[in-house]
Amino acid sequence: MQTTPAVTPPVKRGRPGYDQETVLQTAVEAFNEYGYDATSMGKLADRLGISKSAIYHHVPSKEDLLRLALDEALIPLESMIEQVHGHEGNADERLEFFLRSTVRILIAKRSYVTLLLRLRGNTELERAALQRRRQMDRELSQLVTLAQREGQLREDLEPRATARLLFGMINSVVDWYRLDGVIDAVTLENQAISLLFNGLHALPEDQTS
Amino acid sequence: MQTTPAVTPPVKRGRPGYDQETVLQTAVEAFNEYGYDATSMGKLADRLGISKSAIYHHVPSKEDLLRLALDEALIPLESMIEQVHGHEGNADERLEFFLRSTVRILIAKRSYVTLLLRLRGNTELERAALQRRRQMDRELSQLVTLAQREGQLREDLEPRATARLLFGMINSVVDWYRLDGVIDAVTLENQAISLLFNGLHALPEDQTS
Repeated sequence: MQTTPAVTPPVKRGRPGYDQETVLQTAVEAFNEYGYDATSMGKLADRLGISKSAIYHHVPSKEDLLRLALDEALIPLESMIEQVHGHEGNADERLEFFLRSTVRILIAKRSYVTLLLRLRGNTELERAALQRRRQMDRELSQLVTLAQREGQLREDLEPRATARLLFGMINSVVDWYRLDGVIDAVTLENQAISLLFNGLHALPEDQTS
Repeated sequence: MQTTPAVTPPVKRGRPGYDQETVLQTAVEAFNEYGYDATSMGKLADRLGISKSAIYHHVPSKEDLLRLALDEALIPLESMIEQVHGHEGNADERLEFFLRSTVRILIAKRSYVTLLLRLRGNTELERAALQRRRQMDRELSQLVTLAQREGQLREDLEPRATARLLFGMINSVVDWYRLDGVIDAVTLENQAISLLFNGLHALPEDQTS
């Protein structure tokens, strides 16, 4: 937390002391708190305690900050989907891997995923990110369909709506999960997965899966 | 749906032709599209095609619009919780009633609930609404605990995290459900409830509940 350079900056352009990652993390927190549109580069500079020109030393524009931030969420999720494609298990096991991995990424990348989930699609960049998000919905929906065909999953559930409901439960984690809360990350992951696969009424013998 | 006055307004101040409900609905759509902070009364007037003073004819301030809009979501939800308290069934039946009713209210009050779910708690009014939302989390969590104690619900799930996960799945409906989509509202409600109670792996005999 180098506070000294901010008070007595060394004779250099752009006041270093912040790396791009810190600027990005701070920007994302501000976007989540005030909304992207309502967060000016000036407001962001105030928050970092640096000048506007120092921010432009790190990134050319506010939109670039948004692009970088969205990639922080999207790239791990897309990479996880690649792993699902390469996974050797049956569709049901791949579905569990997909959902478990998503919980983990969401907890690890929480503020970035929050930003992604709140996008309204008002710009080309936002629409492109939402397009990538929809691709994940399709992947999950296809996996549900496949697991139904393979006979591991009940067949009465509409796959697209089911995919949305599954993501709905899991995505909510970014809104409410606290690392210092009532439940640790591993227990949360296990309980969410067991709830989705076995339900609230699960028989005792189902509760271990 | 008074359309006639909108076309040929009577000679009155403030260009009526919009009732408060229409102003409110339009305001909520704008808040959801641009964010509350980024939606000025001027922008809202443009969208309604009326003057700013005509809006003030309906509501004294933008914050009053927000208050009215949040009540559109919160009052039916709170009234539903009152019904849960008066419900004669066991805790498991009351839990199902709670979750089913929530799905229905969310579909009926979709744009208002979307606004509620996106609140950041930056003002006193927003914090008060979030407080009312947290009360619903507590009600749901207590109902989960009670159904566990009564032996109808598996006991390994942490009640507070479970309440959040249940709301997570159900609340997601406002983000993705379309009336003209792949699934009608009644089927969606039945599938979501069955998924939550019986899980993706439900045995055939469970699929009717």
